[in-house]
Amino acid sequence: MSKLYVVGIGPGNNENMTLRAQNALRESDVIVGYTVYVDLVREQYPEKEYLTTPMRHETERVALALSQAANGKTVSIVCSGDAGVYGMSGVAYEMSSDYPDVEIETIPGISAVLSGAAILGAPLMHDFAVISLSDLLTPWEKIEKRLQFAAQADFVICLYNPSSRKRGDYLEKACDLILRYASPDTVCGIARNIGREGETTEILSLGELRKTQVDMFSTVFIGNSQTKTIGGKMVTPRGYKYE
Amino acid sequence: MSKLYVVGIGPGNNENMTLRAQNALRESDVIVGYTVYVDLVREQYPEKEYLTTPMRHETERVALALSQAANGKTVSIVCSGDAGVYGMSGVAYEMSSDYPDVEIETIPGISAVLSGAAILGAPLMHDFAVISLSDLLTPWEKIEKRLQFAAQADFVICLYNPSSRKRGDYLEKACDLILRYASPDTVCGIARNIGREGETTEILSLGELRKTQVDMFSTVFIGNSQTKTIGGKMVTPRGYKYE
Repeated sequence: MSKLYVVGIGPGNNENMTLRAQNALRESDVIVGYTVYVDLVREQYPEKEYLTTPMRHETERVALALSQAANGKTVSIVCSGDAGVYGMSGVAYEMSSDYPDVEIETIPGISAVLSGAAILGAPLMHDFAVISLSDLLTPWEKIEKRLQFAAQADFVICLYNPSSRKRGDYLEKACDLILRYASPDTVCGIARNIGREGETTEILSLGELRKTQVDMFSTVFIGNSQTKTIGGKMVTPRGYKYE
Repeated sequence: MSKLYVVGIGPGNNENMTLRAQNALRESDVIVGYTVYVDLVREQYPEKEYLTTPMRHETERVALALSQAANGKTVSIVCSGDAGVYGMSGVAYEMSSDYPDVEIETIPGISAVLSGAAILGAPLMHDFAVISLSDLLTPWEKIEKRLQFAAQADFVICLYNPSSRKRGDYLEKACDLILRYASPDTVCGIARNIGREGETTEILSLGELRKTQVDMFSTVFIGNSQTKTIGGKMVTPRGYKYE
């Protein structure tokens, strides 16, 4: 059996990687990934063999990694954030049936829902939903339905892929659907370039968020009905009593 | 300004801690936490001052940490999993207004939703909701409402605190509510003792999950309508086309 690690490397900087992720990369002969993420680890492990594929070539990337592993090499596929949240691990399992001699191990990493929450404050003290606004692989009607149920459930909502060049008005559309059930004063947050140069946070109301342009390096948080700001931080109370 | 780190140490073993979490602990004079989690880090950093409080004494724990930091010490509060998912960071911000000279920094960690998903396979390839079944701080009616909206949204659902001695039938109740909208054949998973001795996984149907007893060291995953099993793993397809 040879090994394929699907490794979540966390947000941008190496500090947010787990020891286990680092050990897997150290142990690997070949490291496969999207160019930008591979460059993040190449500095640390310059002696490895690197194979890169462009953005969105996910199945090609996994096929490359599986065939390298089938040839007896220890291989890591690197994913930004977590390997299992809209990541490569699902594709790896789906394509693995043709490679019975490759054992897949998923190594979790800090996904943007956790790293973004940490720099914004403490928005996830209560039940939450994570929804991607990308309709590349999901019909927009399904996304609309999920946004509305999440708002009715009074979940804290974390939005991945809130915008792209082709989907400039998707965040506005999403806010409008949530506004059917939530107050325009709902506390929201934007985390930009998490763990990288240019990391910033912004706290604003849902009404303001609706009119805000974000880029593809942003993660958006929409509070629940109890979320508030404390000293510039976004905080969802858990319900403890204070004397 | 003195520093209070709220540190997510991930599941049980040190391997799942980030470098950043380790640096914070190394830098700290005092480490505060629930006895069980403090014991996990004490071996690694025996020279620190340790202060422990029993389970559920969260506000007491945070007050202890804030007062130590106010006295000029660098302090870490350790949380299992992530510091921000039902964690201590919210309480820290809520109690911080009395300690203007203490700067709080939240260091994210691998929460059970990510570590559990990784050992079960790839359940989180699509939109998901995280719901705690503990009604200690949340009215059960609110939890019931959220479960039903999450099921209607066809989210993958991750349940924290699925059971305890006093709440032996809560998982059964939750499954019954989800079964109003989801098939009894829905693929589910249980991750037990993640990252610790006795780590196990179990894949079963929603109909079977309903009749299953889990303990407080379990995290439960309920697939969406597309979730399937591949080679004994729980996998939610993302929607890629395979030639």
